[in-house]
Amino acid sequence: MKVVRKRCEDTSLPRVVIVGGGFGGLYAARSLDKLPVRITLVDRRNFHLFQPLLYQVATGGLSPGDIASPIRAVLKRQDNVEVLLSEVVDFNLEANQVVTRDGALDFDFLIMATGMSHSYFGHDEWAGLAPGLKSIEDALEIRRRLLSAFEQAEKCTDPAEQQRWLTFAIIGGGPTGVELAGAMAELARGTLKRDFCHIDPARARILLIEGTERILPAYPPELSRWAAEKLTRLGVEVLTGTLVTSLAVDRIKLSGKHAGEVEAGTILWAAGVQVAPLGRILAKRSRAETDRSGRIKVNPDLSLPACPNVFVIGDLAHVPGPDGQPLPGVAPVAMQQGRYMARVLSARLKGKPCPPFRYRDKGSLAVIGRNAAVAHFSRNNLKGWPAWLAWVFVHIYYLIGFDNKLVVMMRWAFNYLTRKRGARLITGPFPTSTEQEKEIFGALQVVD
Amino acid sequence: MKVVRKRCEDTSLPRVVIVGGGFGGLYAARSLDKLPVRITLVDRRNFHLFQPLLYQVATGGLSPGDIASPIRAVLKRQDNVEVLLSEVVDFNLEANQVVTRDGALDFDFLIMATGMSHSYFGHDEWAGLAPGLKSIEDALEIRRRLLSAFEQAEKCTDPAEQQRWLTFAIIGGGPTGVELAGAMAELARGTLKRDFCHIDPARARILLIEGTERILPAYPPELSRWAAEKLTRLGVEVLTGTLVTSLAVDRIKLSGKHAGEVEAGTILWAAGVQVAPLGRILAKRSRAETDRSGRIKVNPDLSLPACPNVFVIGDLAHVPGPDGQPLPGVAPVAMQQGRYMARVLSARLKGKPCPPFRYRDKGSLAVIGRNAAVAHFSRNNLKGWPAWLAWVFVHIYYLIGFDNKLVVMMRWAFNYLTRKRGARLITGPFPTSTEQEKEIFGALQVVD
Repeated sequence: MKVVRKRCEDTSLPRVVIVGGGFGGLYAARSLDKLPVRITLVDRRNFHLFQPLLYQVATGGLSPGDIASPIRAVLKRQDNVEVLLSEVVDFNLEANQVVTRDGALDFDFLIMATGMSHSYFGHDEWAGLAPGLKSIEDALEIRRRLLSAFEQAEKCTDPAEQQRWLTFAIIGGGPTGVELAGAMAELARGTLKRDFCHIDPARARILLIEGTERILPAYPPELSRWAAEKLTRLGVEVLTGTLVTSLAVDRIKLSGKHAGEVEAGTILWAAGVQVAPLGRILAKRSRAETDRSGRIKVNPDLSLPACPNVFVIGDLAHVPGPDGQPLPGVAPVAMQQGRYMARVLSARLKGKPCPPFRYRDKGSLAVIGRNAAVAHFSRNNLKGWPAWLAWVFVHIYYLIGFDNKLVVMMRWAFNYLTRKRGARLITGPFPTSTEQEKEIFGALQVVD
Repeated sequence: MKVVRKRCEDTSLPRVVIVGGGFGGLYAARSLDKLPVRITLVDRRNFHLFQPLLYQVATGGLSPGDIASPIRAVLKRQDNVEVLLSEVVDFNLEANQVVTRDGALDFDFLIMATGMSHSYFGHDEWAGLAPGLKSIEDALEIRRRLLSAFEQAEKCTDPAEQQRWLTFAIIGGGPTGVELAGAMAELARGTLKRDFCHIDPARARILLIEGTERILPAYPPELSRWAAEKLTRLGVEVLTGTLVTSLAVDRIKLSGKHAGEVEAGTILWAAGVQVAPLGRILAKRSRAETDRSGRIKVNPDLSLPACPNVFVIGDLAHVPGPDGQPLPGVAPVAMQQGRYMARVLSARLKGKPCPPFRYRDKGSLAVIGRNAAVAHFSRNNLKGWPAWLAWVFVHIYYLIGFDNKLVVMMRWAFNYLTRKRGARLITGPFPTSTEQEKEIFGALQVVD
C-alpha cells in the first residue's frame, strides 16, 4: 500500500483550487497551510511576479529574475499544495469543476485570483501602438522600445525625425504612469547622459498625459501637487486634464487642456485596466454582477452570491470599502484578502459563520525618482526622501525570496551610487539571417 | 564654428570600423583608446555578452542582465569610440566601405569580429528540434524547454510519456555540453528535488552524446576521464563514440558505440559551430581562403591577404597555433587578438612593420558542477575543488561591469549555499487570450 506522505495526495481532504499565483492567490495558498485541506494552485506562468517593481524592469534598472520567484520554490515547504502549470479556460460550476487545458479539476472550494489586464477603453487596436505594463514580456517590450528609440535618434540625420524619436508619451497619470515617467526622466538625464555621440539624451521630451485634473488622483491633492512639481523638475511635461482621442504609430491627438497633436516615437499605456476574459467567463457562468471594469461583486465574505463555495479575491473582486468606494486594485488588498481565506474556510469547515472581510489600510506609496516618493498614511502624508526610504524598504520587505531581496537591495545601492542602470539590454526576436544577406549570399553563390 | 569635443567627431583622424561587440571587438576598441584614430563599433545588439556563463542563464542560475553589459556603458569613458546599433549586411572593399542597414560606412581600417553560429552539419532542419546556445534568446529558449519538460512530466499520467519528458539529451561533449549536462544534473537532483507532487525530478535521465572517443577532446585524456567519472556520479549518462544520425521531435537515432534509438522530450545542441553568413560574405568579397567551418585564413598580423587594411579576429579567424593546429575559438584568444590590434595599427600608422600575433596560452577551464571543474595549464592539470575555485574567480574577474561582478558573486554564493537557482522563470510569448476562451466567450455572448 502506498503511504501518503504529502497532504496534497490525501484525497480524503476537501480540495481548494486557487486560480492565479499573484499576491492574492499566493497569500491564500500560504495562509491555508494550517487548515485540513489540500490545495491545487493553477497558474499559466511558473513564477510569482512582484508587479510593483515591474517599471524597474521596463526602464533597465532590474532584471526579470530579480522581481520574480518560481511558485514551486515559494510553496516548496508546504506539503498540502500542488502547483499546476496550466491555463483555466472555463468553469462547470454545477459540477464544481474548473476546466483547464489539461482537463477538468474538481473542487470543494474555488478561489479566483486572476487579476486584471489592460483596458484600452474599447480601442483594442491601440494595444500594439502603446503597450501597457502587466507582464515580464510587457516590461521587456517597453524596455526594447525605450532604448531602441535613443538608438534610432542617434542614427538619424533629420532633426524632426530625431526629435520624434526623442519624444516619449505616457498615457495615464496613476502610480504606474508616474513611476515610469520618473524612471524614464532619470534614464535620459542621468544614466544615458554620456552614452551617445550625436544626440544629447537630456533633450528627450517626456510627456505624462492624464485625463483628470491631477496626477495620482487616488492620493491627497497636496501629494499630487508635490509629485507634479517634482516630475516637472525632473524634466517631465505633466499634461493634466487632457484626453487622448486617437493614436497612430508616432502621433497622438489630444483634447482638453492641451488639445492638439503630438509626435512621439514611443507611446506607453498606463491608463486603464479591465477584467481579463477568464474573469468575464466566471461572471457569466455564475450570473454574478460586475462593475464597469468587469470586476465581480461579491458577498461580504468574498464568496459569490450564487455559488457560496466560490471566492473572488484581489483585483478581480469588487469589494466596497468603508467609504462606499470599491477597494483599489493594489497588492495590500489582495494580500489581506488572500489571508482572509484561511479565516473564512476555517469557519466554513467548522460550519460556523465568519465575520466579513475588512481592509486595514496601512497607507499607499508611489515613487517618483531617486530620493523622491509620496506616501499617504491614515493620518500623515510623507514626501521626498523619507517617503522614498519607506518605499524602498516596504518594497524590498515584500519581495518574495530571500536571494531576490539581497540582489535587489544591492542593485539599488549600486544604481543609487552610480546612477547606472545595468540591465539596459535590448532583447527579443530579431532576424538572424536577413533577407538582404540571403539575397547577397545567394547572388554570390550564383556568381561563383 | 562647432568645437570638436570628442575625438570620435574628429574627421581628420583615420577611421577604424569594428564589426561585433564580443570579446574580440570590445577588447580591440578598448585597446585603441590611446591611438590617434576614431572608432565606429557596429553591433546589432546593444550589449556585450559574457558567453562563458550563458549556460547558467539556460539552467536558471543567472539572469540575462547578470552576464551582459550595455556596450555604450562599457565604452562610455572612451571618447574616440562611436557605437552604432545596426547590422552589417555587405562589404564594398574596393571603396573601403561596409554596408549596414543604415547606409554605408567608410573605413580606413576594418576589424571583423563577428564570431560563429551553430552548425548542424548540413541538417539545418534540426535547429528547431535541438536549439543551440549562442545568444540570450537561445538561453531563455533552452531554459523554457528544460523547465517546461518537468512541468509536462508532472501533468501526464502515462508512464512512458512521463519518462520521455524526463529524458534530456545533449549532443556534443565539448565544454558547453559538459557544462550544460552538469548544471542540468544539479538542477534535477538538487534544486527541483522537492518541487513536484507526482514526479521525482531525480529520476531524470540526462544523456551526453559525443562523437569522438572522449568528452572534452581538447583537454588532456586524464582530465576527460575524470570529467566523465564526475558527470557519471552526478547521474549523467556519458555516451562517447556515438553519432547522431537523425533527429525527430522527441526521438534520436544513434550510431556507433551506443547505436539505437532514444526517446527524449528535450534535445539540446552543443556539437558544432560554423561561420555566420556575414563572415562567409566577407570571405567571398575578399576572395580569402577559409577552413572547413568557414573560418577565414589570415596573415600573421591577422590582416586579409588581399586587403591589408582589413583584419579578422576572434572565432572568425583561422590562425595556426604553435602546433600547427588552428587556435581554439575561446574568449582568451579573442581578447588577445583584440589587444594586438593596438600594436598592429600603431605600427601601420607609423609605417613600421609589426611582429606577428602570438597567442599566450594561459590555460583552459571547464566546469562540471558545484566544486567540480577541470583546468589545464601549460605544465599542470587541476581538477575538482581547486579547479572550480579557479574557474569561479577567473569568470567573475573577466565579467565586464563592476555591478555584474558583485551581483553574480552574490548569486553564486547564494546558489552555492542553498542549492537554489532563483532565475527559473519560464518566459516568452504565450497566448494571452486563447482560441478556446474566445469560442467560449463568443458563445456566451450569443446565448445572452
